[in-house]
Amino acid sequence: MQLTRAADYAVRAMIHLASTDAGRSSLNELAEAAEVSPAFLSKVLQRLVRAGLVASYRGKKGGFELLERGRSATLYEILQALDGVPELNICLAPGGCGRTPTCAAHAVWEKAQAQLREVLSAATLEKLVCESRTMPSTRTVRA
Amino acid sequence: MQLTRAADYAVRAMIHLASTDAGRSSLNELAEAAEVSPAFLSKVLQRLVRAGLVASYRGKKGGFELLERGRSATLYEILQALDGVPELNICLAPGGCGRTPTCAAHAVWEKAQAQLREVLSAATLEKLVCESRTMPSTRTVRA
Repeated sequence: MQLTRAADYAVRAMIHLASTDAGRSSLNELAEAAEVSPAFLSKVLQRLVRAGLVASYRGKKGGFELLERGRSATLYEILQALDGVPELNICLAPGGCGRTPTCAAHAVWEKAQAQLREVLSAATLEKLVCESRTMPSTRTVRA
Repeated sequence: MQLTRAADYAVRAMIHLASTDAGRSSLNELAEAAEVSPAFLSKVLQRLVRAGLVASYRGKKGGFELLERGRSATLYEILQALDGVPELNICLAPGGCGRTPTCAAHAVWEKAQAQLREVLSAATLEKLVCESRTMPSTRTVRA
């Protein structure tokens, strides 16, 4: 029951893109900010491009930029772009599970899922970046 | 970000053990109730035995029984027995993550994790089984 590494790196990269004053970041810069290899991040970014959250540009001044849909995206939408709708258990997937009408645990998975969705949907990238500006040395500290 | 299959089957088996009037269930009976192969469930049950939630008995009238600690266990504790403390992201593990002081998303993962823990910790096996007795044909319907 854990976020995939790809989803975590996607969020890190999106936060960097939303924070950068330059607007556009190279793959290497994003990989450094997300603390991941450029090769792995490249695959993650491809998924964000396909989802319409990020644009990629070729050439000398190429790189990646947030699209408007990316800037207003919530953490829930970013996770969704990476791994599909985050579901705590397979019984919550569309089509559900044949056991649902008699399953004693189903309502609990459903409630946990709803709470998770609520928290992740309330967190927009814009809000996170705005809040992080009040954090100490957001740009310079690297651990 | 999904429950492991082992954890889901563990919950199914524990619910069956808590619901059964006989008190003790064979591996095959539990596997049928959880809709999983006896071979896979056997490994899951071993973990529940090691965690002190379930007792196993050998012999003709052998099988599995809930221990007192199992009967009062919450879904959170059952998941914990299977896969360790459920953590939404690796940054929430003990020891944390070096990025925490400057990470814009950390507080959101933390909040989501706390909500998840709250919901799963409020769901005791006893409560679930009690509620499921009011469900239509809990014991007989199989889908």
